Amino acid sequence: MLEAKVINPFLEAAANVLATMAMVQATPGKPFIKKDGAALGDVTGIIGITGDHQGSLSISFTKPCILQVMANLLGLEVTEINEEVCDAVGEITNMISGDARRRLEAQEIMLQGGTPTVVSGENHSITHIHDGPYLAVPFSTPSGDFTVEIAFNKQ
Amino acid sequence: MLEAKVINPFLEAAANVLATMAMVQATPGKPFIKKDGAALGDVTGIIGITGDHQGSLSISFTKPCILQVMANLLGLEVTEINEEVCDAVGEITNMISGDARRRLEAQEIMLQGGTPTVVSGENHSITHIHDGPYLAVPFSTPSGDFTVEIAFNKQ
Repeated sequence: MLEAKVINPFLEAAANVLATMAMVQATPGKPFIKKDGAALGDVTGIIGITGDHQGSLSISFTKPCILQVMANLLGLEVTEINEEVCDAVGEITNMISGDARRRLEAQEIMLQGGTPTVVSGENHSITHIHDGPYLAVPFSTPSGDFTVEIAFNKQ
Repeated sequence: MLEAKVINPFLEAAANVLATMAMVQATPGKPFIKKDGAALGDVTGIIGITGDHQGSLSISFTKPCILQVMANLLGLEVTEINEEVCDAVGEITNMISGDARRRLEAQEIMLQGGTPTVVSGENHSITHIHDGPYLAVPFSTPSGDFTVEIAFNKQ
């Protein structure tokens, strides 16, 4: 099944990067289809994907979750979503994309990633424009939640 | 100069797509470097770019500007940034990316675009994670402003 084969490595990569980089244990929840206008996060990293499949990946953090990630990453307390936080979210997004692409290479699926873009703003929502497989998965951590979304166009 | 050669086609494409699709005459203003945390828009389309150069493109609309674009595109009045608006912003972003890539092919620069992602939320701000050429250009229209940003990694 194309969907699971291409999408699961991104979910595995998200949990792996958060655990490895930020010592945050993330538990995936039940995948969901978003309702129109649902608020998703306070800071989001987005990366475009090209190659054998064309799509986009986003990871949206609630403020408490990203502030804990920052504390673990840098060993210092951050209280606001500032430029440093945006840079870290971009780096995390890049690492998830890279980790997932390495996992997919083992299945001979070759993808390239663009450079990440980070959005900050309370309660923004994200819409992936696509006509193929799509998945949104909430992850819970002891310090709050984040959501990973992956969307692809049909081949 | 790499910067102008690669970046200008995206600015030309943005003005061209808005004029052609939505009969909106957009006048480019002075490029600027963003201050930390500057609010940029109410709805933003983002697309990742790979190929000979790796980067990202965003176009951020103020609410009055995108509502006018919608009125021109669809011939009906839209009063809120809803799902239909997000889909249109995604389509506009795709068209700008495609138009710019065709212009660059004439210079033998080959790029691919991912699928667009659209962010909605009042006064969100955008950070492109990159280490190379970058440009933010405000455009003014009779109905409000939009901003195009293009960022690339160093080769």
